[in-house]
Formats: sequence, structure tokens, C-alpha cells
Amino acid sequence: MARAIAASERVRGTTSPNPPVGCVVLDASGELVGEGATRPPGQAHAEVVALAQAGERARGGTAVVTLEPCHHHGRTPPCVDALLAAGVARVVHAAADPNPEAAGGAGALRAAGVAVESGLLAGEVERGPLRAWLHFARTGRPHVTWKYAATLDGRVAAADGTSRWISSEASRAEVHDLRAKVDAIVVGAGTVRVDDPGLTARGPAVTRQPLRVVVGAGDLPPRARVLDDAAETVHLRTHDPDAVLAELARRGVVDVLLEGGPTLAGAFTAARRVDRVLAYLAPKFLGDGAPALRDAGVSTITGAVGLVVEQVSMSGPDVRISAVPGP
Amino acid sequence: MARAIAASERVRGTTSPNPPVGCVVLDASGELVGEGATRPPGQAHAEVVALAQAGERARGGTAVVTLEPCHHHGRTPPCVDALLAAGVARVVHAAADPNPEAAGGAGALRAAGVAVESGLLAGEVERGPLRAWLHFARTGRPHVTWKYAATLDGRVAAADGTSRWISSEASRAEVHDLRAKVDAIVVGAGTVRVDDPGLTARGPAVTRQPLRVVVGAGDLPPRARVLDDAAETVHLRTHDPDAVLAELARRGVVDVLLEGGPTLAGAFTAARRVDRVLAYLAPKFLGDGAPALRDAGVSTITGAVGLVVEQVSMSGPDVRISAVPGP
Ligand SMILES: NC(=O)c1ccc[n+]([C@@H]2O[C@H](COP(=O)([O-])OP(=O)(O)OC[C@H]3O[C@@H](n4cnc5c(N)ncnc54)[C@H](OP(=O)(O)O)[C@@H]3O)[C@@H](O)[C@H]2O)c1
Ligand SMILES: NC(=O)c1ccc[n+]([C@@H]2O[C@H](COP(=O)([O-])OP(=O)(O)OC[C@H]3O[C@@H](n4cnc5c(N)ncnc54)[C@H](OP(=O)(O)O)[C@@H]3O)[C@@H](O)[C@H]2O)c1
Repeated sequence: MARAIAASERVRGTTSPNPPVGCVVLDASGELVGEGATRPPGQAHAEVVALAQAGERARGGTAVVTLEPCHHHGRTPPCVDALLAAGVARVVHAAADPNPEAAGGAGALRAAGVAVESGLLAGEVERGPLRAWLHFARTGRPHVTWKYAATLDGRVAAADGTSRWISSEASRAEVHDLRAKVDAIVVGAGTVRVDDPGLTARGPAVTRQPLRVVVGAGDLPPRARVLDDAAETVHLRTHDPDAVLAELARRGVVDVLLEGGPTLAGAFTAARRVDRVLAYLAPKFLGDGAPALRDAGVSTITGAVGLVVEQVSMSGPDVRISAVPGP
Repeated sequence: MARAIAASERVRGTTSPNPPVGCVVLDASGELVGEGATRPPGQAHAEVVALAQAGERARGGTAVVTLEPCHHHGRTPPCVDALLAAGVARVVHAAADPNPEAAGGAGALRAAGVAVESGLLAGEVERGPLRAWLHFARTGRPHVTWKYAATLDGRVAAADGTSRWISSEASRAEVHDLRAKVDAIVVGAGTVRVDDPGLTARGPAVTRQPLRVVVGAGDLPPRARVLDDAAETVHLRTHDPDAVLAELARRGVVDVLLEGGPTLAGAFTAARRVDRVLAYLAPKFLGDGAPALRDAGVSTITGAVGLVVEQVSMSGPDVRISAVPGP
């Protein structure tokens, strides 16, 4: 399963609106004979890729998949059929498919005499490569990760507006990797006006660019870098997070990286549309300047928006905190 | 040495202006025959306590001490003399004594034929129980730990001024333990006016109260809890961190816990008089309210006050970050 997870991780950002699934096929003696991950939309699912590689050796073997195999005709035929045709004797999957249309894969396999084991490393997959897609499947809304880089005292810019660079080179490189794995990057018009960011993913491993999305009612500076042709950009003239998410869902966006600024992040926080927070805290003090978050709809301490810390790690000299809504 | 460190840790907060030293004595065969830690000022040093317990069994044995034994007559005779009188053959110590008066202990022991080993676990002792005292010995100023409890977005109070409680019960219990180990707790007059804190150490293990210090030029509310008789309080009518530290040094204070608020912390930060930062970050968002730090004398990003993260850990649901000035 760890190998299947790694395979799925490699295709993150290239499969939406389909899930980035990983699959390995073992023959009857337990030898690895196939490995695959979801191809871009309209092309083969992970199971089909792995089974094609395995060929006849799949017969009597085991398919290990990060998600319950699908059981419906989308743009491609159901994976359950492919698994049955290949003659696998056993399927082990991590997450269950919450999609009422696609679900029932495990049941259909069992009915056809295949041994099915569910839930292996499900937590890891649900928090990892399939997190955004599972959220989308359950809620119909793209998954939003709000990422920000602040000083230890919670500032995202100095008093004079300068903010380059708050976080370390290591953290910025991590963010570029992250951008390459999401479907869209969203920022407020204020960030475009003040910082004029390019909002592209840069780095040796980057092969595709996420959609750039600017949210705000007013016009953007005509020469804003976000309007260059390094990647596609949409300007959504609204202040409503749900309108933003609905439009992005319509465009097949499943995984969103919200990169601020404080006002837009406040609107998403107030609307409870931040599904994960990724804070890069640089060990620095400013004592003045723009705060990380503004106007989140909270006026008293008991009304604070609660989170649960999921992971804390170092990113170079910075502290990286990942948290989710709760408790 | 680990045992000597634990012994010194137990007396932290009770020895100033003397260092909280720990000592264990092994007999010639390596068996533990004595253990001690610094007694309150005017009473026996750690070595003397441990040697008294060991008695004749110290002869030919080893003394393991967290700090180089002193070599000067203060209120008590030099420990070097006590070690020689007890006939120990070997002394192992962690930190060297930076105090020009007291130093030379290792040299004096060697000159008398005792084998001396320096530096064992010195880093641990220097960052741990002897940190404040070593800082004081080197600079003449008490060591300042600025502790604050903020939300992940850097707020120490909500828009309406409420701040109870930002951090978790676990973090607050830790702070009470911390208070019991310092010589003085310092706050700005604003914190007294707004929060009216008691500023005492509470908890099962608490046997003494640190000095309470309020900094500000104006008068305090006559019924402020900080003026009750749960502990001694001084009101320093100044805005100058160095004046505060000089007065505290005069009173024998070595280890200071600065508990804010943002304005006073800003003044200490601007004056580079914060020697350690202890941030308890609660996984919550406020999006408004008092920031952790104000007026730290920084106007642009390149002028940010730099820190190095020393330790990150969880304190219940909160993230606890310890950082020191640098790099
Ligand atoms: N370190 C970081 O991680 C980071 C990231 C981003 C930004 N920043 C800093 O943030 C600062 C910019 O702050 P900002 O608050 O102006 O940025 P912002 O949140 O990006 O932009 C605010 C603008 O977004 C539009 N908007 C969208 N939804 C809105 C809503 N619900 N309510 C109100 N306005 C909404 C409005 O534009 P219209 O007027 O067009 O309607 C508003 O003026 C800069 O100093 C930048 O450096 C830091
Ligand atoms: N969560 C936490 O860790 C924490 C801790 C403490 C406070 N707080 C919050 O902080 C808020 C209070 O903020 P604050 O900034 O007023 O608190 P503060 O820093 O405690 O007090 C400010 C006052 O300190 C005096 N002062 C001392 N040195 C000064 C200097 N160099 N410059 C200016 N004034 C100096 C002044 O009093 P005079 O006018 O008398 O001169 C000033 O009005 C409250 O909402 C409280 O809840 C939170």
C-alpha cells in the first residue's frame, strides 16, 4: 500500500476532477507485477494502468489500491470490470469511495467472488493524496488549504508593506512544490495590487501550472504579473467564498491553495471554508504591519475559530504548522 | 551528570543570586554516596551538601558537578577547599564558571593533584538550569524570557479585549510551573489595568512566589490583584527596560519571566533585552484584537528581529515554540 500511495502522490495535481489513485498488482506468489496511477481526465484509471502492466500475471493475484475501485461508467468503464476481467483473486483498498454513483465497488467485487479487504492505511490516504478529492466527493466543494507565511508575532508584511521575504528559502521551495500539486491558487485583489506576485509554480520538478484565481470586485492593474501568460488566470468579481468555490467546482477544480491575503483569508475563515491551514512561521518579530488574518467575524475570545493541530515540523529555520477545523 | 542536572533543576528559583547547581559524589568504586543541590543564599553550595552526605566515602572518589566549583570566599567558603578536604580524586563538571572572581576552580583543583574533566553535558546545562545564571554572570543583567500565549494568527486578546483563555489548561499549568522557577514576573501597567492578573504561581508543587513587577509611569488601580499580599510586588515607574533590569539585578533577581503585554514586550524587543521567547500558540483564529507584539522598532522586513528556534513541542493542543535571538 505504501508503494500505491507513493504512486498516487506522484500524479497529484494532474487528475482532477478524478482522484489521484495509486495501484500495485501482485501475482499469485506475491511478486510485484504492475504499478500505476490515475492518468489525466478521460484516460485510464490507476487499476487499468497497473493491470495492463501485469498482463496475464494478474490472474489469481492481488490488486492493492488507495481507493475503493469504481463501479460506474464515467468517461472510462468501471475498474471493477477490469479487475474481474484480469482475474485477480484479492483486492486490498485504503479509502472507501464516498461517491454514491461510483461506490459499491467492494460489494460488486465480493459478489463476484473476489476477496476484498478495506481500510488498510485508510487514514494516511485520507489525510494525504486523496484528502482534497474525498472532501470534494463528500461536499461538492473544492478543498481549500489556506497557506500563509507569517512572523512568530503573526505579521505577513512589515509596517512599510514589504514582505519579501518573510519565510525562508526552504519554505518558499516547499510552497512551489505545493503549488504544482493543486488545481488552483486563489488570492485577493489586494495581494495582486500590493505584492504583484506571479503565482506560478517554479522548481526543477514542475511540469504544469495551476489555474490562477484573483478574487475582488475592482479592476486589476493591467500590467499585473498574474495576467501574464505563464499560466491561465481568472478574475472573479465577487466577495463571496461560496461563489468562488462554485465557479471553481464548475471548472473541475478539486484542490485549492488559498494564498491570502488577510482580507480574503478572513472571508473564507468567517464562512468556514478553510479546510486546512498551513502556516509557515518564520522565527522573526516585526511588531507592526499587516496581520495574517483580518475580519474573520470573531469579536470575543469564546467565539474564536477552533482548530486542531495535525502536524508540526521544521521547514529550514521556520516552523510549519498544519491544522484543520475542530474540535 | 544527568542526576546532578536533575538535582539542580529541583532547586531552580530558590538560589538566586547564586546558581542552582547540582552535585553527586561517587566513592572510589563508583558507587553513589552523596547528592546535593545549592541551598538558599547564605547556605551551603551543592558540593558541600553532597560531600556532607558522602562523609569519609568521598575520599578517593569523584564529584560530578553541573558548574565548575567556585574558588572564592563569598558568604560561604570556596567549594574547591571542601573538595580538597574531602579528598576526592576526580572532579567532573559541565559548565565553566564565567565569573572572574569565582573562576579558576578547575585550575586550583588540578594544581592540588585532582583530575578535572570539563564540559560533560555542558550544552544541556547551559541551555537548562544554569542558563539564566550564566547570562547574568556574563552580562550583569538578569536573563529575560518573554512568554506569551497567542492564537495562530498572533493575537493575545479578542476585539472586545477578552483573553481568557487563549491557551489551553495544559499550557497554563506549564506557565504556573515556570513562574515557580523564576525570580520575578514582569508585566506592563496595561496588562494590570486590562486583565488584572494575580501573577502568582499556582499548583500542587508550588512552594514559593516570585517577585511581581509592574512597569509603567502611571498609577495602578488601587484594588489591582497584583497589589494583594499573595506575593511581593514592586511598581517601577519607568519605560526603560534597562532601568527595570538594573533595579531587578540590585534586588538579586537573576531569572525574569516577562509576561507582556505587547507594548512592554515591544520595548524589551526593541532594546534587544529578550533573551529567550516562549510562545504558546493556540490553534485558534481571531482575525482581530491585540497583537502579541507592538512597537518593536521595526519598519521594514529586512529590519525584522531575527530568532533561532530552539525547540518546538506540543503543550496539550497548543504549539510551544522556544526561540533565542540570532542568527
Ligand atoms: N505572507 C503571506 O502569506 C501573504 C500572502 C498574501 C498577502 N500578503 C500581504 O497581505 C497584504 C494585502 O492585504 P489585503 O487584505 O489587501 O489582501 P487580500 O485579502 O489579498 O485582498 C483584499 C481585496 O480582496 C478583495 N476581496 C475579495 N473578497 C473579499 C471580501 N470577502 N471582503 C473584502 N474584500 C474582498 C477586495 O478587492 P476589491 O477591492 O477588488 O473588491 C479586497 O480589497 C499585503 O501586504 C501582502 O504582502 C501576505
Ligand atoms: N496572552 C498574553 O500572553 C498576554 C499577556 C499580557 C497582556 N496581554 C494582553 O495585552 C493587552 C494589553 O496591552 P498593553 O500593550 O496595554 O499592555 P502592556 O504592555 O502590559 O502595558 C502597556 C503599558 O505599560 C507601560 N509601559 C512600560 N514600558 C513602556 C514603554 N517602553 N513604552 C510604552 N509604555 C510602557 C505603560 O504604562 P503607563 O501608562 O503606566 O506608563 C503602558 O501603557 C491586554 O488585552 C491583555 O489581555 C496578553
